[in-house]
Amino acid sequence: MMKLTILGSCSAYPTIKRFTSSQILENNGKSYLIDCGEGTQIQLRKNKIKFNTIEHIFISHLHGDHYFGLPGLILTFNLLGREKPLKIYGPKGIKEIITTLMKKGNTWTNYKLEIIELKNIIPEIILNTTNFSVTTIPLTHGVYTNGFLFRKKTITHKLIIDKAIELGIDKTQYAGIKLGKDGVTENGKIIKNRELVEPLVPDITYAFCSDTIFDRKIIQQIRNCDLLYHESTFLKKHENFATKTLHSTAEQAGIIANESNAKKLILGHFSSRYKDLNLFLEEAKTKFKNVDLALENKFFII
Amino acid sequence: MMKLTILGSCSAYPTIKRFTSSQILENNGKSYLIDCGEGTQIQLRKNKIKFNTIEHIFISHLHGDHYFGLPGLILTFNLLGREKPLKIYGPKGIKEIITTLMKKGNTWTNYKLEIIELKNIIPEIILNTTNFSVTTIPLTHGVYTNGFLFRKKTITHKLIIDKAIELGIDKTQYAGIKLGKDGVTENGKIIKNRELVEPLVPDITYAFCSDTIFDRKIIQQIRNCDLLYHESTFLKKHENFATKTLHSTAEQAGIIANESNAKKLILGHFSSRYKDLNLFLEEAKTKFKNVDLALENKFFII
Repeated sequence: MMKLTILGSCSAYPTIKRFTSSQILENNGKSYLIDCGEGTQIQLRKNKIKFNTIEHIFISHLHGDHYFGLPGLILTFNLLGREKPLKIYGPKGIKEIITTLMKKGNTWTNYKLEIIELKNIIPEIILNTTNFSVTTIPLTHGVYTNGFLFRKKTITHKLIIDKAIELGIDKTQYAGIKLGKDGVTENGKIIKNRELVEPLVPDITYAFCSDTIFDRKIIQQIRNCDLLYHESTFLKKHENFATKTLHSTAEQAGIIANESNAKKLILGHFSSRYKDLNLFLEEAKTKFKNVDLALENKFFII
Repeated sequence: MMKLTILGSCSAYPTIKRFTSSQILENNGKSYLIDCGEGTQIQLRKNKIKFNTIEHIFISHLHGDHYFGLPGLILTFNLLGREKPLKIYGPKGIKEIITTLMKKGNTWTNYKLEIIELKNIIPEIILNTTNFSVTTIPLTHGVYTNGFLFRKKTITHKLIIDKAIELGIDKTQYAGIKLGKDGVTENGKIIKNRELVEPLVPDITYAFCSDTIFDRKIIQQIRNCDLLYHESTFLKKHENFATKTLHSTAEQAGIIANESNAKKLILGHFSSRYKDLNLFLEEAKTKFKNVDLALENKFFII
């Protein structure tokens, strides 16, 4: 299980009630920050995310509404006495931005700050542990942009403990059985692994796709994801604006969700020209049923 | 009359209820933005300041809590279709910061953006019109820092209109009399200007002093100001922190207000370690009576 909380999802600029792009994905005690628009640190506090659980920040692209809250967050971590290292993944150029700001303010962090610059135009695994990985989803949006595919990996089988006891399999074998080994009874009889464990639960995946033109080439990579965030800056009636500004419509987001066989779609990055956001829901639903709005302070369990 | 609204006054980082340094001074239909911490554009909306009335922005220094809201505000102005030019006054280095951010995002403003870099270490008049001026107040704070002295100039005398009518002075002379000329009656008798006008009201001045160590050398420049904002990051019991970090205490702010003969003092930039801000008031009052806290969304008529 992972928990995704929306910190901000409006496009262009924040207002009194809305914040620009930022989300936090919680998994196994760690929090992964995705984009960091202005005011993200305020929203992190509001949603009671513990700053120290954030070790990785992913920036999709260098338009201000996706990262202008990052310099402040880096310095706030420092002022709060952070010691834990922080890794930031973002487009080439982000290091120059951060170092320029730091130098002019005659300051630096006391914690280790590692900035990993991305420039690949094909998917790249940028974080990979035993039970979690993050892969870039290259997007097309005028400036170099990545979405991110988050994968919670299923690495161990769930042991059917009653059966193991019944068959007289010693506890010392349990760890091995969870990893796929066969069991051996007290009498030396071999019990096939598949009889001792429940079927593997598939990996849980979250695909974050913002900002991007409508582009079917991402479908192959995000196929069967459990949750898909796809930007929908415009409604179909303004599809010409979407094309011109390299954004998508709600209908197009619905098409991507449908054709990639996502389990659920959430929409965001709405242009401020629209007052009634339900229109986005209705439009996407013409192509894909299970859809919701990614509004501030809402959360989704994946 | 001028109106000063506090948009943010906490030090270091914003929280759910507090914002970092930013103030707006309104005079004669124009708004002057002083510092621009993260979230300033949200606070401008909350306080119903019309974005288009802002033509001048003054940045005291390049610590993040005083300008990390500036890049977003510049771009928001652009997205809202601004055509009016914008002038930004800030320390040398601010132009490189803004241009770096713009270049990496592959964007620029459609309106004229003029960045005036300051590097003088003696007071400098940086804006001067017939009825308004802004002068830097060089401060000592580790990085190059300026306060700003805002002056609403009194340029015309107020005509005693009943007397002018009584003496039979023609209306065509009124404009000249307001500027200091003598009047002439229908009979050709000269009436001294001082008999036709009320005494000149003194200029109205607002002195913004943040961030700074306790330094009496600013007193001469801000003497007799109508309103003084002086930072008070710490209480006297932490004066050693103030000295170390080149900040001031509430008592020291009170001393500056007292010795400069300010009419009123407002305090801000409080360290987040203090929960009871009334302690700042009490401490400053031991040195200067007319003192208030510069809290978010409060305004002061000068």
